[in-house]
Amino acid sequence: MSSIDLNADLGEGFGRWTLGDDEALLDIVTSANVACGFHAGDPSTMHRIGVAAVQRGVAIGAQVGYRDLAGFGRRRIDYDLDELRDDILYQIGALEAFCRVAGGQVDYVKPHGALYNTAAVDEGQAAAVVAAIRAYDPALSVLCQPGSVLARLAAVAGLTVVGEGFADRAYQADGTLMPRSADGALIHDADQVVARAVRMAVAGEVESADGELITCDVQSICVHGDTPGAVDLAARVRAGLAEAGRTVGPFVSWR
Amino acid sequence: MSSIDLNADLGEGFGRWTLGDDEALLDIVTSANVACGFHAGDPSTMHRIGVAAVQRGVAIGAQVGYRDLAGFGRRRIDYDLDELRDDILYQIGALEAFCRVAGGQVDYVKPHGALYNTAAVDEGQAAAVVAAIRAYDPALSVLCQPGSVLARLAAVAGLTVVGEGFADRAYQADGTLMPRSADGALIHDADQVVARAVRMAVAGEVESADGELITCDVQSICVHGDTPGAVDLAARVRAGLAEAGRTVGPFVSWR
Amino acid sequence: MSSIDLNADLGEGFGRWTLGDDEALLDIVTSANVACGFHAGDPSTMHRIGVAAVQRGVAIGAQVGYRDLAGFGRRRIDYDLDELRDDILYQIGALEAFCRVAGGQVDYVKPHGALYNTAAVDEGQAAAVVAAIRAYDPALSVLCQPGSVLARLAAVAGLTVVGEGFADRAYQADGTLMPRSADGALIHDADQVVARAVRMAVAGEVESADGELITCDVQSICVHGDTPGAVDLAARVRAGLAEAGRTVGPFVSWR
Amino acid sequence: MSSIDLNADLGEGFGRWTLGDDEALLDIVTSANVACGFHAGDPSTMHRIGVAAVQRGVAIGAQVGYRDLAGFGRRRIDYDLDELRDDILYQIGALEAFCRVAGGQVDYVKPHGALYNTAAVDEGQAAAVVAAIRAYDPALSVLCQPGSVLARLAAVAGLTVVGEGFADRAYQADGTLMPRSADGALIHDADQVVARAVRMAVAGEVESADGELITCDVQSICVHGDTPGAVDLAARVRAGLAEAGRTVGPFVSWR
Repeated sequence: MSSIDLNADLGEGFGRWTLGDDEALLDIVTSANVACGFHAGDPSTMHRIGVAAVQRGVAIGAQVGYRDLAGFGRRRIDYDLDELRDDILYQIGALEAFCRVAGGQVDYVKPHGALYNTAAVDEGQAAAVVAAIRAYDPALSVLCQPGSVLARLAAVAGLTVVGEGFADRAYQADGTLMPRSADGALIHDADQVVARAVRMAVAGEVESADGELITCDVQSICVHGDTPGAVDLAARVRAGLAEAGRTVGPFVSWR
Repeated sequence: MSSIDLNADLGEGFGRWTLGDDEALLDIVTSANVACGFHAGDPSTMHRIGVAAVQRGVAIGAQVGYRDLAGFGRRRIDYDLDELRDDILYQIGALEAFCRVAGGQVDYVKPHGALYNTAAVDEGQAAAVVAAIRAYDPALSVLCQPGSVLARLAAVAGLTVVGEGFADRAYQADGTLMPRSADGALIHDADQVVARAVRMAVAGEVESADGELITCDVQSICVHGDTPGAVDLAARVRAGLAEAGRTVGPFVSWR
Repeated sequence: MSSIDLNADLGEGFGRWTLGDDEALLDIVTSANVACGFHAGDPSTMHRIGVAAVQRGVAIGAQVGYRDLAGFGRRRIDYDLDELRDDILYQIGALEAFCRVAGGQVDYVKPHGALYNTAAVDEGQAAAVVAAIRAYDPALSVLCQPGSVLARLAAVAGLTVVGEGFADRAYQADGTLMPRSADGALIHDADQVVARAVRMAVAGEVESADGELITCDVQSICVHGDTPGAVDLAARVRAGLAEAGRTVGPFVSWR
Repeated sequence: MSSIDLNADLGEGFGRWTLGDDEALLDIVTSANVACGFHAGDPSTMHRIGVAAVQRGVAIGAQVGYRDLAGFGRRRIDYDLDELRDDILYQIGALEAFCRVAGGQVDYVKPHGALYNTAAVDEGQAAAVVAAIRAYDPALSVLCQPGSVLARLAAVAGLTVVGEGFADRAYQADGTLMPRSADGALIHDADQVVARAVRMAVAGEVESADGELITCDVQSICVHGDTPGAVDLAARVRAGLAEAGRTVGPFVSWR
């Protein structure tokens, strides 16, 4: 397959507060991970992004998170697992309302922040994410890290798993992301970010912080929108992928 | 028509806190107004009630409210009207997820508390409620007070309007409810409550606090579940309606 | 008196979200209205600003608001008045903890947003604000609009009332602010803002949107920090006041 | 020392939702752990309890918890430790406002739920609790489990540590509480609860679930108020302690 998807987190403001340039990113990415109100995101922002995404043919994912506005969903919470499943169902349903109004639908689910990291290694929370998606609609894809516990359990459950790579995050030798708090966790050099994205997309590999070569089987590249210059960088990543001969388009259309 | 619906507010706890006996009420009512998380209600409660309602053939309504857990949705908020519409869409969608998982669907919408009262008299908020429902699914019914602004605007918009009467609330001469804070607003005598419910359902009339006879064209009777003895009272109202020759069943099945 | 105070709203972010440049403003203003967590503001931000304000000798005010993060405290809420009083007490106390830790204290109270506007005209909510302050510490000043209901009730209750003027907001002929939503409500021209601030501070007057001259007896000028260029504008206002011969310093030090 | 303190969690409702009979418990206990709004508790409840406690001479403790209304503070959250310290400071300050209004003061701090359990074993979170208390007022006592990490760090920091025992909870052989979710975690037999309380207070020991004798050096016995019959049981525990010759009174008065 010569196609590659480009995803970004969108709609991560809340009420008076904004984060990133959603409109600009929607012109670049092919899949939009829309915050659903638990770690970020409010109904009117979800409505606006739903309409804008459908107009542009951008696929819509429920970026589900812990119920933790104050912590932006970045603090691990030891949920009761049934409650976690239900919190995820709630968020998917809420986003679906705005997709429906816009003439679209929720296409996939991507966990956010600490839920993303926890579901990558924790059987219980990963199973809760899978249970929510299966109960809601087994046709929904799961966007997550290749090789993670979530990826494994989702595949076992019959869900479509889409692996993603992070062009601007450092990897550890075991294939996991370096924690945000560590030095060098974020890669700021634009040329390097573009080169890594292309290497991931074309060769399916990335160099770890220790200089080791890691296999990285990804169908989507994640770019970020909440830092200065983020939109320009995302555009450069997209251009770089196209120059490398990959067709940039939403993974949900490949099915 | 010889049928009459019986509705109650359900799922109005939040996390550790419960309110009323949802399970018992679900054996009595024919339509369940399920709180959707903004004034009360949490995802796991919504899930549980969704399953229990579908099992019993009880119709499910989205009991949408202001975003105000601390005030239980009983304080009027001067919303931006687009934001109100979007908050309502969000709540309907969230509930839909649990109905879907349970093999059912959201059948109707009933505003809660201060939104109920405001939409009964305020064109702007009533229009926001109507806009949300129409955008989501014009086949959804609106459960509201006969003669209210919401009833009028919903009818103009082509929505099915279901009028409800309150057997345990005092009416003013103009047909509106006496405010909760007023003396005599709540009718506690069980015999009186049953008699009023039957009179509303059979004769379409109710006596106001001033002793005047008011026309009260209702297809549903609202009972409450959050006071001591509420469940028994609800059962007596149901029995009274049946004895008076009315078939007690969900209004959505009459269509 | 030749002194004039300069106040601004600070700490109006929440968790991941920031608003304005608090550090820069703290070098310019003499009184900091610190958000207390109900409409905006989080504990760590309050802690940081408390320390920074005490270090700079900037007076600290509790910028108390409705419990409404989603609406940023800008939507009127019909509170039960005892609950409003208690919500205000709670916020003052919370801020006091951080002032105490920093070696300072809460010096005054300024209502935020819809509470500011409502308390300016509504006897009930104004009385709730006054009741909270009197119960907590009658030595606290109230920063509010001259001529407002809040100013009147606070004075009657024996509180110190400090009148403020808004250099960048248009006034109506009756001395109230033009609603934010109206055309021309915000004055963007920097020279005009500075000139208005100086005229308010020196002559105690301001020109209304209709061109009428309004008396404006103010001891503090409010500048804003949440728009592009806001910090520069605030610095220019301060310089303008100094050039006009006014000593710029915190009003609480005049007592 | 022949005195013993009796503490209970109070004010754990939120808005429309109540939990336990605060008024009745205030007539029985000598120290009230008042919820401060993060896991439970609202300003008006805090106000009411503050007044009632001061009137009765009941000591007031800040029952500080994670910011997690939906989880009632019972889910461990991996806080940034500075943010945890600040969340605790915020809660103490908020409660202080109501104590001050009532003519009293915050006398001590007791962590709630998952924070209680985590600070009992986790150096980081325990240190954050200690840091908050030391910064706010080193004269505040800490009510916690004897032998816990929190007890140790608080003592090292020079705080007064008050050990508490749980008459109605099963202990494990290592002196920690059996998790709430385990069978037999809660002891329901009233006679047994009273006997255990007396044994803890008089002999400083308790029998573990395995039948081992554990040293239990406590100055306060914790009773609960949120289960049926809880108030009667608390009264029986108090009577039992008095019959055993212990003076029941607030530990803060012993200093």
